[in-house]
Amino acid sequence: MIKKNAFYAQSGGVTAVINASASGVIEACREHKDKIGKLYAGQNGILGALHENLIDTGKETSAAISALKHTPGGAFGSCRYKMRNLEDSTAEYERLIEVFKAHNIGYFFYNGGGDSADTCLKVSQISARMGYPIQAIHIPKTIDNDLPFTDCSPGFGSVAKYVAISTKEASLDIASMAASSTKIFILEVMGRHAGWIAASAGLAAEEAGDAPHIIVFPEIPFVREEFIAKVEKVVKKNGYCVVVASEGASYADGALISGSLNKDAFGHQQLGGVAPTLASMVKHALGYKYHYALADYLQRAARHIASKTDVEQAYAVGRAAVEKVLQGKSAVMVTIERGKGEKYSWHIGEASLEKVANVEKKMPRSFITKDGFGITQKAREYFQPLIMGEDYPPYKQGMPYYPKLKKLLVDKKLRRWSGS
Amino acid sequence: MIKKNAFYAQSGGVTAVINASASGVIEACREHKDKIGKLYAGQNGILGALHENLIDTGKETSAAISALKHTPGGAFGSCRYKMRNLEDSTAEYERLIEVFKAHNIGYFFYNGGGDSADTCLKVSQISARMGYPIQAIHIPKTIDNDLPFTDCSPGFGSVAKYVAISTKEASLDIASMAASSTKIFILEVMGRHAGWIAASAGLAAEEAGDAPHIIVFPEIPFVREEFIAKVEKVVKKNGYCVVVASEGASYADGALISGSLNKDAFGHQQLGGVAPTLASMVKHALGYKYHYALADYLQRAARHIASKTDVEQAYAVGRAAVEKVLQGKSAVMVTIERGKGEKYSWHIGEASLEKVANVEKKMPRSFITKDGFGITQKAREYFQPLIMGEDYPPYKQGMPYYPKLKKLLVDKKLRRWSGS
Repeated sequence: MIKKNAFYAQSGGVTAVINASASGVIEACREHKDKIGKLYAGQNGILGALHENLIDTGKETSAAISALKHTPGGAFGSCRYKMRNLEDSTAEYERLIEVFKAHNIGYFFYNGGGDSADTCLKVSQISARMGYPIQAIHIPKTIDNDLPFTDCSPGFGSVAKYVAISTKEASLDIASMAASSTKIFILEVMGRHAGWIAASAGLAAEEAGDAPHIIVFPEIPFVREEFIAKVEKVVKKNGYCVVVASEGASYADGALISGSLNKDAFGHQQLGGVAPTLASMVKHALGYKYHYALADYLQRAARHIASKTDVEQAYAVGRAAVEKVLQGKSAVMVTIERGKGEKYSWHIGEASLEKVANVEKKMPRSFITKDGFGITQKAREYFQPLIMGEDYPPYKQGMPYYPKLKKLLVDKKLRRWSGS
Repeated sequence: MIKKNAFYAQSGGVTAVINASASGVIEACREHKDKIGKLYAGQNGILGALHENLIDTGKETSAAISALKHTPGGAFGSCRYKMRNLEDSTAEYERLIEVFKAHNIGYFFYNGGGDSADTCLKVSQISARMGYPIQAIHIPKTIDNDLPFTDCSPGFGSVAKYVAISTKEASLDIASMAASSTKIFILEVMGRHAGWIAASAGLAAEEAGDAPHIIVFPEIPFVREEFIAKVEKVVKKNGYCVVVASEGASYADGALISGSLNKDAFGHQQLGGVAPTLASMVKHALGYKYHYALADYLQRAARHIASKTDVEQAYAVGRAAVEKVLQGKSAVMVTIERGKGEKYSWHIGEASLEKVANVEKKMPRSFITKDGFGITQKAREYFQPLIMGEDYPPYKQGMPYYPKLKKLLVDKKLRRWSGS
C-alpha cells in the first residue's frame, strides 16, 4: 500500500498554545515516516486546502518545529471560515476531496473549536460518500473551554492563568491607589456564551474578600441594581472593588450589556464594551473614579505566561491525533480526561465527532456562587490545576525568541479555485 | 546626638517595581541602625504623614521585605494628592513638620514622579524655614519615563517590556487571523504627554516591516488622513496592521483623539478611548475588521514579566537614597546614569530637586521616524537595554506568591488632622 500524506490546519481564534499542538502533530508524524508520508499544513487553515496552498512542513528544521511549543498565534495561519452543511456547500466539500486526492492526503487533522469539530465530521462524511478514504481527527483548541466531552480545551489553561495573574496584579495596583483616587477596576475578558474565562479570574483570590470581588458572567442575567449595590458594599468594606466581566454578559432579555451589533463571518456578534458600560454605570450611580482594561488578543496570545499544564496538554493532543490515525480511527476528537484521584492527573481520551459537533459546554451553575457574582470552591478545584506551572519561552535581547518558519508551498496540481 | 527616624512614602500611580525601591530603602536602613532609627512608611503615601498613619516597617520580617522586590502595586499604599505651593498650603506643610517632629523623623524619602519631586523640594524648604531639619530625598518612579536628569525612571523598563512583548504576541495572533478575519489590531497604552511607552512597543519589531506598523505618539500632531493612508498601505502590503497608540495622542489643535473630559485630582485629564476611536475611523474609512486592547493598569502592574534591569535599578535607587542621607545630602533626586561605553552599563547619580521639580522630559524628536509613525535606530538603542533580563516572581499553585505585610501603625501622638 502506498503511504498516504497528511494535512493539518488551524482554525478559528488562535491561542497561546495552538502551535504546541502543531508541534505535537508534526513531531509525531516525523516519528512515523514508515506509515505517514508528507505532512502538509494549510496556509490560513482550511482555506489553504480549498486554495491548494499547502505548506510542506517537511522543509522546516526540527529546531523550528520544537520552537512552535513556545510560539503564540497560529504559525501556519488560521481562518474564520465556516464550511456549511453538505447539501448547501457540496462543491466546497468536493473541492476539498479533490485537493486531498491530488496530493494523496489520507489523514486530516483539524485543530479548532466547535465549528471545526463540525467541519471535521463533515469531511469524514463526504469522504465516505465520495468513496475517497480520509481519516479525520479533530484536535481540540479553544480559549472558550466550551468543547464537550473533554475536561478542558487546550488554550484555556493559559488564558485562565493570564487572566488570574492580571487580575491579581491589577488588584494590588488599585488597592494602593484607592484611598485618594481610583476605586473601581474592571477587566473585560473574552467569553461569548460561557463564563469560563471570567470565572478563572476567581483564582486571583486567596481568601474570602480578596479581589476579584465581582465577576459578571454571561450565565447570570445582569441586574443593574444588584450590581451597583454589590459594588457599593464592596467599596464600603474594602475601599475599592475589582470587577471581571465577560464580554458576553447580558440582561435577562438577552440584550448584551455592551450593546454591540457587529457580526463576524460566523454570524456571531463581535463584542467589546462591557467594561466601559459597567464603569459608566458605577460612575453615574456612585461617583467612584474608575479604570478599566480590555485584554482582548493579549489574553489569548500571552504565551510569555502560559500554563505549563496547558502547553503539555496542547502538545499531547497533537501527538495523540497522529496515534489515532495510526490506530485506524476517524471522526473522533482527542480529549483530555481528568483522573479520579485527589491529586490532579490527566490522560488522553477520545469522543465521537457525531456527539461533539455543535454542542457547547456551559459552565455548571454549581461553579457560580448563589449571589451570581463569584466562583465556588467546586469551581476553584476544577480551575486550579489547569493553570499549574510556568513554561517560559527563551528570551533574546529582552524579548521572547520565535524562530520564523519557511512556510514553503508545494506545487499546485489543480486549477485555481473560484469558491471563496 | 539622638538618632533620627526616617519616613518613606509612595506617591502617584504605582509601578511593577516601586516596591523594589521600598525594599531597597528598608534594607539599607536596617543595615545602618547605628545612624538611622526607625523607618516609618506612610499609609497611602503622604496622606499617611498628614494623618499620622505611620506604618512601622520594623515589624515586618526580612523575608517579607525581600519579597517586595517581586510584588507589584504600592505595598504601603500610594496616593494622588498634590501638595500645593507653600503660601497656599502653609498649614499642610506645617502639619507635616509637626508629625515629623512628634516622631523624631529627620529623613524623608519620597518615591514618585514629577509632582512628588516638587513636594519633596518643598518639604526641604519648609524644613529650613521652620528650623526643623529634614533631609529630603526623592526616589524616582514613573512608568511615564518623563523625569529629567535621569537616563530612565524605575518602572518604565518593565512597562516597556510588557508593552513590547504584548505587541509582539498580539501581532502573531492577528497575523494568523488576517486572511479571513481581523486585519487591524490597536493597543492603547499609557502616556499623557510623552510617547515613551508607545515608543517602546517598537522593540517588538525585529526587522523592517515587522509589527508594530504604526505608533501614534502624543508628540506628533495626529492627521486622520495620513493615518488612514498608512493603515491602508500596510494592510495592502502585509495583510494586516498593528497599531500602538498613546492615550495622550492628539490633533494639531491639542484636542485629544479620545475626546475624554474627566479630570483627576491633579487636574490631569483622565484619558482612555484612543483605541476605539482609531478603530472606528479605520472601519469607517476602509471597512477592515478590527480588535483593540486597552492595557491600562495591566501594563504598570505586570510584575510577572518585569525587566530585570528595571527591578535592579528600582532597588538600587531605594538603597542609594539612604546612602545620600548618610552623606548628609538633601533636596536631591537619585538618578540613573548610563555609561558611555558601547555595552550598556549604568550607575547611580543625583540631581538637585531645584532643577528637577515640575520639568517634564519629552521624548526627543530624533527617536521618531520622519513620517511620525515609528521609532528610529537611535530610539531602539536607548530602549533596548532597559527591557533586558527577566526577573520572575516565585509561584505557588500556578500564581505569583506575594506574602502579605502586617502594616502595623505606630501610636498617634497628635490631634486628628482635619485638613484632607
